[in-house]
Amino acid sequence: MALRVQKFGGTSVADLERISTVADRVQKAHENGDRMVVVLSAMAGVTNNLINLARQASENPDERELDVLLATGEQTTAALMAMMLKSRGLKAKSFLGFQAGIQTNHMSGKARIREIDSQNLRGALDEGNIVVVAGFQGADDHGDITTLGRGGSDTSAVAIAASLKADVCEIFTDVDGVYTTDPRICPQARKINRISYDEMLEMAILGAKVLQIRSVEFAKKYNVPVHVRSSFNEEEGTMVVNESADMESPVVSGITCDMNEARITFKRVPDQPGISAKVFGALDEAGISVDMIIQNSRSGGEKDPGGETDLTFTVTKDDFNRAMKISEKVANQINAGEIRTATDIAKISVIGLGMKSHSGVAAVMFKALAEENINIRMISTSEIRISCVIQAKYAELAVRSLHAAFGLDKEQ
Amino acid sequence: MALRVQKFGGTSVADLERISTVADRVQKAHENGDRMVVVLSAMAGVTNNLINLARQASENPDERELDVLLATGEQTTAALMAMMLKSRGLKAKSFLGFQAGIQTNHMSGKARIREIDSQNLRGALDEGNIVVVAGFQGADDHGDITTLGRGGSDTSAVAIAASLKADVCEIFTDVDGVYTTDPRICPQARKINRISYDEMLEMAILGAKVLQIRSVEFAKKYNVPVHVRSSFNEEEGTMVVNESADMESPVVSGITCDMNEARITFKRVPDQPGISAKVFGALDEAGISVDMIIQNSRSGGEKDPGGETDLTFTVTKDDFNRAMKISEKVANQINAGEIRTATDIAKISVIGLGMKSHSGVAAVMFKALAEENINIRMISTSEIRISCVIQAKYAELAVRSLHAAFGLDKEQ
Repeated sequence: MALRVQKFGGTSVADLERISTVADRVQKAHENGDRMVVVLSAMAGVTNNLINLARQASENPDERELDVLLATGEQTTAALMAMMLKSRGLKAKSFLGFQAGIQTNHMSGKARIREIDSQNLRGALDEGNIVVVAGFQGADDHGDITTLGRGGSDTSAVAIAASLKADVCEIFTDVDGVYTTDPRICPQARKINRISYDEMLEMAILGAKVLQIRSVEFAKKYNVPVHVRSSFNEEEGTMVVNESADMESPVVSGITCDMNEARITFKRVPDQPGISAKVFGALDEAGISVDMIIQNSRSGGEKDPGGETDLTFTVTKDDFNRAMKISEKVANQINAGEIRTATDIAKISVIGLGMKSHSGVAAVMFKALAEENINIRMISTSEIRISCVIQAKYAELAVRSLHAAFGLDKEQ
Repeated sequence: MALRVQKFGGTSVADLERISTVADRVQKAHENGDRMVVVLSAMAGVTNNLINLARQASENPDERELDVLLATGEQTTAALMAMMLKSRGLKAKSFLGFQAGIQTNHMSGKARIREIDSQNLRGALDEGNIVVVAGFQGADDHGDITTLGRGGSDTSAVAIAASLKADVCEIFTDVDGVYTTDPRICPQARKINRISYDEMLEMAILGAKVLQIRSVEFAKKYNVPVHVRSSFNEEEGTMVVNESADMESPVVSGITCDMNEARITFKRVPDQPGISAKVFGALDEAGISVDMIIQNSRSGGEKDPGGETDLTFTVTKDDFNRAMKISEKVANQINAGEIRTATDIAKISVIGLGMKSHSGVAAVMFKALAEENINIRMISTSEIRISCVIQAKYAELAVRSLHAAFGLDKEQ
């Protein structure tokens, strides 16, 4: 008798018919003897409608009150699901965030779960209930309702699974699982059967479509086995699990492509201590996060402190205009030369636990790109990832080349 | 600096424009120095839409879950109102039923308020907030969400006013106040400026349109001055207050007309102890409440215990068919004669505190009806009310005649 937490997103509960299909699925597992916790998002479109309503009520809706409003979306789905299950003669009970003991910090609209007091949920399970939880929401220590941000229901589900020590947290979505790369770019993309938390985190950009990053951090921290699978069929999806010694990881597990960055280069910056602190301090103050940073000394570096260097970094396209304004101001203060920018760039990454023990991954990557005459503009690495910034027009070609070069095209 | 509780119903918050008009009103009172608590219903039509949604999800929606669903209606209005007030630079904070400390019993869908722990509301008022409360909802001692039944926001408002010892509880509605009778029947009907809790309770049928009966019971119990007034203008409405020695009550305050009853008569019932217990016991078991009861001995009554009597009572038209089935069964058991019924009846009542000290009200009433050749079928009385059952076709004529006979047509 397993304890399963199942999370269904907005498209899986888009209308009463779809909710009924989810109820079928839950009922089947329940009748199979499993103890079930169902975490639900708002019906597709509802959250956006509520946000529009709020914007009509106020140009800049108060965040505390927006959370009170948005929380009604998941409340509605949870109540309807519990009703349906009960009308089938099953024992079921809905729980809102605060009733489920989901305690968060005060950050309205993007609250973080601090702790889950799962006493109520445990009690309901022990009484034989199918437990239905409104995802995306919690309460802070004032008892104010908070929401967890876009995709927050994933995090609700994983956190509840951690708290209840569930056997598995199943994330039902409209795709079959996590893929080696985006199938729309690379038709050879294959579903990954098993992936480690760390790889899943690195595949953030690709994975964001199927899993909120924060939920993966949670899963890793509490070692919750997460099963990403389709709500439209019964196929096995992707298991996101802890890295284990017997995990036969391929050298590279997946390729991601991020078209959402822009590059800013300060030319001829004085090569002195404290200069980068000025640049990145100013950006940080404005709440702009910087992804990649590269500094190349043009002159002798430490041996030649009076020399100059080029400083290049990337920000998201959303932040680009604000980042440019700040950069121009700082460039003046620090006597930098001109600023050059590029928004037609793509960041291509290869990700894999196997990199830890296999050398030569970078060489294979650079060779594959060189064979297609793709110039590499920036490089950054982590223990299990290598990223290259290239011209945007080569993005799809680069993804397909790397997918083949690392043997991901073949069945494994 | 008065503490005012203002309640706005569904038509007063029908859309964002109307909610904005309410916000104007609240802002004005707040800027006038009053401490404000605003209790809101769901936007007009929302509760019915949610009930329809529930009926699509389940033929017989579970009551606990229906409450979770319905509570979203008031939650939405409260959040929108607080947002609007805040976007005007005012301090405001929304509270759901459980956050406002509204503790109820377990009766889903028709819960009764047990107690209000107004600590949170007081705290928010002391911090200078306009307090916005979602009406109609509370929580039981398991922390389950409950709702208070149709018109429950009136009761929320009066209970909160009682708990906070507010100076007044203003119930804003789409009529100008409580009228001497239904203006659609009698154009001479006038707005009553001041009425006692007891009269308001007796005028239940008429008053139901403007005030939930339970809210009047609450107001009476805790001596909360209630002001029923229009949300469309600034006119004074009707003050519902405690009966006071200096209250110059007219003999009769108002006339009500109830077309929603049906009459059942048991002919030739054995005039023995325990017979009525059998009849009304059976009806009570079926959850049918009986309004008027009349028993006329046909023979010698107590002196002639073997005699027969006629037993007549009224039930609501909704309960009539069920009541008839039970009556036929009981009539067999007790050897009664035939059963006669009438559904084309009206119950006309005159209500007034003045009856306590003025005799002759009944005589005036009977004479007025007789002058119009209206036959009285049943009579019942309370300390401040006389009700007559007549043929339905005479209802409007009777109301107008009595309105004139008791001097209610004249300005007072």
